[in-house]
Amino acid sequence: MAGNSFGNIFRVTTWGESHGKALGVVVDGVPAGLALCEEDIQLFLDRRKPGRTDISTPRKEDDQVEILSGVFEGKTTGTSLSMLVRNTSQNSRDYSQIADCYRPGHADYSFDAKYGFRDYRGGGRSSGRETIGRVAAGAVASKILKELGIDVYAYTTAIGPVSINREHFDRSAILSTPTAMPDTAASDQALAYLKEARANNDSMGGVMECTVTGLPAGVGDPVFEKLDANLAKAVMSIGAVKAVEIGDGCAVSTRYGSENNDSFFADEDGIRKVTNHAGGTLGGLSDGAPVIVRAYVKPTPSIFQTQHTVNQAGENIEIAIKGRHDPIIVPRAVVVMECMTSLTVLDALLMNMSARMDRIVEFYRS
Amino acid sequence: MAGNSFGNIFRVTTWGESHGKALGVVVDGVPAGLALCEEDIQLFLDRRKPGRTDISTPRKEDDQVEILSGVFEGKTTGTSLSMLVRNTSQNSRDYSQIADCYRPGHADYSFDAKYGFRDYRGGGRSSGRETIGRVAAGAVASKILKELGIDVYAYTTAIGPVSINREHFDRSAILSTPTAMPDTAASDQALAYLKEARANNDSMGGVMECTVTGLPAGVGDPVFEKLDANLAKAVMSIGAVKAVEIGDGCAVSTRYGSENNDSFFADEDGIRKVTNHAGGTLGGLSDGAPVIVRAYVKPTPSIFQTQHTVNQAGENIEIAIKGRHDPIIVPRAVVVMECMTSLTVLDALLMNMSARMDRIVEFYRS
Amino acid sequence: MAGNSFGNIFRVTTWGESHGKALGVVVDGVPAGLALCEEDIQLFLDRRKPGRTDISTPRKEDDQVEILSGVFEGKTTGTSLSMLVRNTSQNSRDYSQIADCYRPGHADYSFDAKYGFRDYRGGGRSSGRETIGRVAAGAVASKILKELGIDVYAYTTAIGPVSINREHFDRSAILSTPTAMPDTAASDQALAYLKEARANNDSMGGVMECTVTGLPAGVGDPVFEKLDANLAKAVMSIGAVKAVEIGDGCAVSTRYGSENNDSFFADEDGIRKVTNHAGGTLGGLSDGAPVIVRAYVKPTPSIFQTQHTVNQAGENIEIAIKGRHDPIIVPRAVVVMECMTSLTVLDALLMNMSARMDRIVEFYRS
Amino acid sequence: MAGNSFGNIFRVTTWGESHGKALGVVVDGVPAGLALCEEDIQLFLDRRKPGRTDISTPRKEDDQVEILSGVFEGKTTGTSLSMLVRNTSQNSRDYSQIADCYRPGHADYSFDAKYGFRDYRGGGRSSGRETIGRVAAGAVASKILKELGIDVYAYTTAIGPVSINREHFDRSAILSTPTAMPDTAASDQALAYLKEARANNDSMGGVMECTVTGLPAGVGDPVFEKLDANLAKAVMSIGAVKAVEIGDGCAVSTRYGSENNDSFFADEDGIRKVTNHAGGTLGGLSDGAPVIVRAYVKPTPSIFQTQHTVNQAGENIEIAIKGRHDPIIVPRAVVVMECMTSLTVLDALLMNMSARMDRIVEFYRS
Repeated sequence: MAGNSFGNIFRVTTWGESHGKALGVVVDGVPAGLALCEEDIQLFLDRRKPGRTDISTPRKEDDQVEILSGVFEGKTTGTSLSMLVRNTSQNSRDYSQIADCYRPGHADYSFDAKYGFRDYRGGGRSSGRETIGRVAAGAVASKILKELGIDVYAYTTAIGPVSINREHFDRSAILSTPTAMPDTAASDQALAYLKEARANNDSMGGVMECTVTGLPAGVGDPVFEKLDANLAKAVMSIGAVKAVEIGDGCAVSTRYGSENNDSFFADEDGIRKVTNHAGGTLGGLSDGAPVIVRAYVKPTPSIFQTQHTVNQAGENIEIAIKGRHDPIIVPRAVVVMECMTSLTVLDALLMNMSARMDRIVEFYRS
Repeated sequence: MAGNSFGNIFRVTTWGESHGKALGVVVDGVPAGLALCEEDIQLFLDRRKPGRTDISTPRKEDDQVEILSGVFEGKTTGTSLSMLVRNTSQNSRDYSQIADCYRPGHADYSFDAKYGFRDYRGGGRSSGRETIGRVAAGAVASKILKELGIDVYAYTTAIGPVSINREHFDRSAILSTPTAMPDTAASDQALAYLKEARANNDSMGGVMECTVTGLPAGVGDPVFEKLDANLAKAVMSIGAVKAVEIGDGCAVSTRYGSENNDSFFADEDGIRKVTNHAGGTLGGLSDGAPVIVRAYVKPTPSIFQTQHTVNQAGENIEIAIKGRHDPIIVPRAVVVMECMTSLTVLDALLMNMSARMDRIVEFYRS
Repeated sequence: MAGNSFGNIFRVTTWGESHGKALGVVVDGVPAGLALCEEDIQLFLDRRKPGRTDISTPRKEDDQVEILSGVFEGKTTGTSLSMLVRNTSQNSRDYSQIADCYRPGHADYSFDAKYGFRDYRGGGRSSGRETIGRVAAGAVASKILKELGIDVYAYTTAIGPVSINREHFDRSAILSTPTAMPDTAASDQALAYLKEARANNDSMGGVMECTVTGLPAGVGDPVFEKLDANLAKAVMSIGAVKAVEIGDGCAVSTRYGSENNDSFFADEDGIRKVTNHAGGTLGGLSDGAPVIVRAYVKPTPSIFQTQHTVNQAGENIEIAIKGRHDPIIVPRAVVVMECMTSLTVLDALLMNMSARMDRIVEFYRS
Repeated sequence: MAGNSFGNIFRVTTWGESHGKALGVVVDGVPAGLALCEEDIQLFLDRRKPGRTDISTPRKEDDQVEILSGVFEGKTTGTSLSMLVRNTSQNSRDYSQIADCYRPGHADYSFDAKYGFRDYRGGGRSSGRETIGRVAAGAVASKILKELGIDVYAYTTAIGPVSINREHFDRSAILSTPTAMPDTAASDQALAYLKEARANNDSMGGVMECTVTGLPAGVGDPVFEKLDANLAKAVMSIGAVKAVEIGDGCAVSTRYGSENNDSFFADEDGIRKVTNHAGGTLGGLSDGAPVIVRAYVKPTPSIFQTQHTVNQAGENIEIAIKGRHDPIIVPRAVVVMECMTSLTVLDALLMNMSARMDRIVEFYRS
């Protein structure tokens, strides 16, 4: 239980290092009878692959997934689903320079403090490549959610100082812009800023957001397993995320109650809310409105400027990182956020099936 | 597993409703041999009691804790610790008016959607009184952490638009100001704002922060059980919290990498960081610097203005909430945030004991 | 997570010591809408009370249960259910004699080795009174199972050398005989043996069995969470149990496959088995036949004969236990076995609700 | 959480089907710094391989393990350890005959009832090949236990009616006899019986036992996580096991307390017990004596005689199983039992590290 599992009923366990033989995931609790093939997974993995555009690392990562168990004649069997991606182009020599020093902003020092040594090849388990397992599992969760009429999609809302204009929200642009921004004009502006940062051998941060629609009211649990609490954990567990908001997030702290409360109203479509400041949760349970989660991502810690740091011997040194690194994490992390959200929402839905006596009786006696 | 437990080794299970007979908590995994008495717990519960000042509800809540098990001759026995607080002054009649309608900003509607009905007395399990169990358990965690040299303290950093001046940070003011602000001048200013909001029958939000010092580097786990991810969950699980930041939080998204990286340096005291933008975690593990968590809290949803809403029959109605309600949640929630942080940090420390082969061998062979 | 919780979705956490203030249980995951009152629980607690007959301890244990949370207007709310039983007649003076010595067959020595000291009053947490929480929770599970058409009942099959005659199985005798044997003739014979053992200041063991009928096929999970594996854990976790059998148990080891396989047949009532050597499970899942579990219980370790042992100072001493002790554990443990079985079966049923995609879609889209 | 994980801190998740692409395991919670290579694992896997002798299936199963993650430069890193075994010689055509019928004694019917369909190739996930992941993980646990001075070894004690003579116990024979019996004479006798059973197209059961020495007193937890309860679950989760005993097991039910209690005595080596009827546990915690667990295994359900059964269409049919099957499960299951015991004991040891306040303080403050 050293931290590589997520979820209760739909339970994901990931493994693998940046420069090991392979990375992968075992998903326990996949319901039986879901049509599933490698293509379903590959579509999601391709969204996190680098090399699509000039704002990501020129490293070539092929990342072909192989399903090893849990599927028989095109359908999930209800038993554990194992998926594997072989590492093919990792070049450990790139990292020999940093084997005995602690890169600022990276996990080198904290891993060494915990374990007594570390796999220094590309960050080992602390590398962003660790998210391959999350994305493979999230692709399965996403497919199940779609069959339940639930749509989960994430996108970039800001890169450095450049934010999207929500009035120009264009969902199709998420997949077509290299920034994953749902606003082509903002994306172009962001690319200009990124170009400048790269020219300065620097890196940039940004903001990403995920929306869930179609989720019925009442999903999640009170107290510690609140839907928003689990989303916060899910999203904060992604490498470079330093803040998480639900709905209007930080902004609520300066509002009056009369401004912030979402009024209910009823019409022929049932009970809904006039506004959605709450971001789709009340008391930790979904309230029928879209669930909105936002994550603030730090700039890539690997920069090509000289930095002060310390080596394993405890000596003060200077370091200049080389290699091929993304100048910004956000565009490739968007699909990871989407997958973590899907995993969280699906697990809450499955847990929710046993919440009411009448529905349990109906399930077993009908 | 419907959400009333928290933690892995130091595992807390809370129970109780706002207007039920009692509230309490069972803590499993309390190490044996800790000196513990009811006074240790009461000190923490008294910090969340209302009625201390005129900015909190005039309801009288006595909240005397009783330890029912797990302590023998003044020391914990290693077996489950049960603590109970009887409800004494709850008046269910206050709530009969809202039994069949959904208060905006409350969990009435989402609970009804989940369970098919709800305990309408003061929110039942969704009431802020639910946190009594968290605070009682957190008091135990806090005492253990102190013996390990780890100090956890939370405080208010903003109320509505009024923020503390960090240059005037005065820890003693946390307990002496009615706002729990570590800055008496800011506190006075905040009280004036609160008075105005109350005069308008309105409520206000704010920001609270928690600092952990003395935590060694390397605590937490990579991937899903990151220390910051678990802190985000812990804090977001507190009723009205809508955003969580670690370290500089949201601000990192507009920075360059060269600004945001914390450089390491070494001197006779070991390896440390020049700055602490990261808020004490790298790669999900503590890095030896103070851990900083911040929470943004919405204004109390109970306001004394007429609001539009819906009743259980699905009719559009108007509601005017009566009763005794805090105009702001933050000052009483500060101790809850402190307790959730302590629970999270302690559990990570206990989990960390089995991280290294050499230390396990030392533990069992010495 | 020091061992006081059981179950995944229907999750029980017990607390309390033999001579503490009270004992109790918190049940998380109780579905909402179950009619529940203290009388439902009391009926089960009364079955484990001593003093009903002259084969149990003459100690008076009143064991009145109080429901503290989780029920509103006679129905469970879906939130955590807390139940408490006050200790009223415990007399700690009885145990001062054994405060510093290790009674043979008891947990005194192993507790001391683990925790560094122990609550010596009546065994503290290792006392049979610990099962009060299990029985209170099991009563709730049992009520839910009844609504699903599932019947769980336990009984004594042997006391010392006296076994029931299965051809005379009389379920009504379980509650009417002091031995909990479903065979009044065997019960009378057993009582004669018990009288003899008591006259010799000795104690006796026995065998108990639990049957589950009405359980549909397919409940349980493959690999580690097999229904029979969880039943084995559930039953072996009861104090004095030293062996657990499923179906024909030990006897299968000397059979040929052709004797031991249960043939299937089909008729208008569906698919069934001709025999039930397997005890209702195949591959860890229920197979539609009655589930049969059997537990072998050691004689009460407290006997009124002089025994050799050691004290805390490590000196060899003689000990003569005084006090009021059951000469046999089985008749009072039968209801505990029944409750542990109910908890296990119910949890497996709730977990099973998310096993199939088609049923999840039906649950959420209908 | 559909049942493919085991353990709390040292947590194992297995995957793979009899005739899928591969089988494997992810182990989370492996402490960092353990020297580990594929040869360590292969030694254990070779003990469960068929084809060593004429009493096991003539199927060739190569079962070469590959470590995919969690090891760097020959040492475990503290991150998740992934191990894989490719299926090479599985021949799905052998099983086409049974695709639509339910074999007596197998999980075919119960899997179909649960999931709505099944992977009929060799039992899929219900196959004995599922234990490959358990054995690979158990090999790691065993290596860690050895470094702590704890020795775990399992062996066959009976095959059909032939039992070992404990006065001739010869540990070296466990690995040298085809029966895994620690008594060559009994082994020879058993082989003669097996030959006869095979000639009759029948199969046989048996008994296996596991001993743990070197375990300090006080390991395990009271109430539900008793060491013996977890051992019972661990062992009962192995395919064909139908009964589990701790120490003298079933035999205690007919004893008097004066016969069954193990007296303590003290000498220069500390506190020990004169006898070990209890099998090394008191109150669910280890007592310093060897831990003894025994499992009763049913005869292989696949027999080459005509049997009555039912097909998926619900028709009564006759079936004659073909293929290559072990006439007895026990000799190959012995290493599985040993591995499940090692996993259970190691997890209890790691959990035990946080049981005492003084030792936690020592761990973090020294």
